[in-house]
Amino acid sequence: MAENAYPKTAINSVKRLGNRAAYDYATIHNLINTCPVLHVSFNDPEHPFPVVLPMLGCTGDFQNPDADPESSPQDIYIHGYVSGRIFRSGKDTGGKGLPITIAASFMDGLVLSLTPFHNSCNYRSAVCYGYATLLTDEAERNFAMHRITDNMLPDRWAKSRVPPTKAELSSTSILKVTIYSASAKVRTGGPSEDRADLKNEQLKKDVWTGVVPVWLQWGEPIAGKENGREDIEPYIEKWRLSENLKGKMGAFKAIEEQDK
Amino acid sequence: MAENAYPKTAINSVKRLGNRAAYDYATIHNLINTCPVLHVSFNDPEHPFPVVLPMLGCTGDFQNPDADPESSPQDIYIHGYVSGRIFRSGKDTGGKGLPITIAASFMDGLVLSLTPFHNSCNYRSAVCYGYATLLTDEAERNFAMHRITDNMLPDRWAKSRVPPTKAELSSTSILKVTIYSASAKVRTGGPSEDRADLKNEQLKKDVWTGVVPVWLQWGEPIAGKENGREDIEPYIEKWRLSENLKGKMGAFKAIEEQDK
Repeated sequence: MAENAYPKTAINSVKRLGNRAAYDYATIHNLINTCPVLHVSFNDPEHPFPVVLPMLGCTGDFQNPDADPESSPQDIYIHGYVSGRIFRSGKDTGGKGLPITIAASFMDGLVLSLTPFHNSCNYRSAVCYGYATLLTDEAERNFAMHRITDNMLPDRWAKSRVPPTKAELSSTSILKVTIYSASAKVRTGGPSEDRADLKNEQLKKDVWTGVVPVWLQWGEPIAGKENGREDIEPYIEKWRLSENLKGKMGAFKAIEEQDK
Repeated sequence: MAENAYPKTAINSVKRLGNRAAYDYATIHNLINTCPVLHVSFNDPEHPFPVVLPMLGCTGDFQNPDADPESSPQDIYIHGYVSGRIFRSGKDTGGKGLPITIAASFMDGLVLSLTPFHNSCNYRSAVCYGYATLLTDEAERNFAMHRITDNMLPDRWAKSRVPPTKAELSSTSILKVTIYSASAKVRTGGPSEDRADLKNEQLKKDVWTGVVPVWLQWGEPIAGKENGREDIEPYIEKWRLSENLKGKMGAFKAIEEQDK
């Protein structure tokens, strides 16, 4: 087993295009912590279709809050509501919690080839399998809310009105997910082509091939109706511009890298 | 039952913040067709965690290819591989196919309030529940590949080398999903606040509140190593710039709309 990585087992081992797989904490936890919307899936015993909910969340370790997510095991905290009915249905897991799957995906570019069959995408995606419980401990709930808030916008917690009131804390639902297994998959590089197409000089002159990079762009903040502060706080603008730069550079850098 | 909408039933009715729910074909099919990565979930009988895969896909109606997805029932075609083992496990659905859930989500803005408890996101998300089968009919497979290619980049199919060879066609796996039920959820507007916080003049002077809009930004295309065409084809640039404008305008427009 590699250090600082999830063991490769039957459940997480990437079967298709395994050369694109990654199992290390750094890749997987970074994807969870930078993806603005996590897709959370679990079963509802009342119908055969898995439930899929878009939710906000991030990794954390309440016992070792300063542990680096890039090199340490983590839990995942999710801000969101799941009905008690669903949790009770998960009882058969022997008290471990509700079996849950969390996916974080980015598209980094559209890869255009001479023929649609070879079109592809540059992407990064992580999938974590774990057991979810409703977080009840007050100190840990505070830790999770703090972590989720600052994971979205660093320092926002301390720069706004905290701590939450008792009513706020009790009406916020937070899931704690103990990760059982996880993997990631990353595609980089440019197009691949069919050999015969590459010999077709007219086709090559007619059809542009390459990559259109894509990233999340954060625009100029718009003040709310009740806003009473004249300038946008510098830490917000610093975060926004840095995210835009990281996103753009990442999408272009992915093109330069060789697809494994 | 509303016209051009999915009937509201036990499975798709939005229980939390139902005022944000939508069931109409236009909202739901548009989300599926504009989201660059769909999250597809189904069960693997070998473990208790739902599988979640990022995949490409779009809606279509092979029998009525010109039907408008905004006002007509549709199937969903997904480009991607699911093992035969999984399909065989779905047999208990009485031949309808593998129960599958498809989610399409966008974040449109980060909503910042005076206190973390009231922070939120502007978002749009659709969830479709349906039965997936492996598409075997050659004509329908061609239709689906054409549709998926042009849904990503309009006209790319006709502008590149088509039709696919027999080998290409046979090595491409396409799922057809018959939609059983679906719903969407949309959050728009600015921050809401706690009444007590609004009376705190110092807090209001200190903390900027409002929305940071976000959208997918497509950057300057980078030619591949084998590219033989000097200029980027105009339809590609037209598509790219129009997507960027639509994305940006949509994120700003969402802020102006009242949250229901």
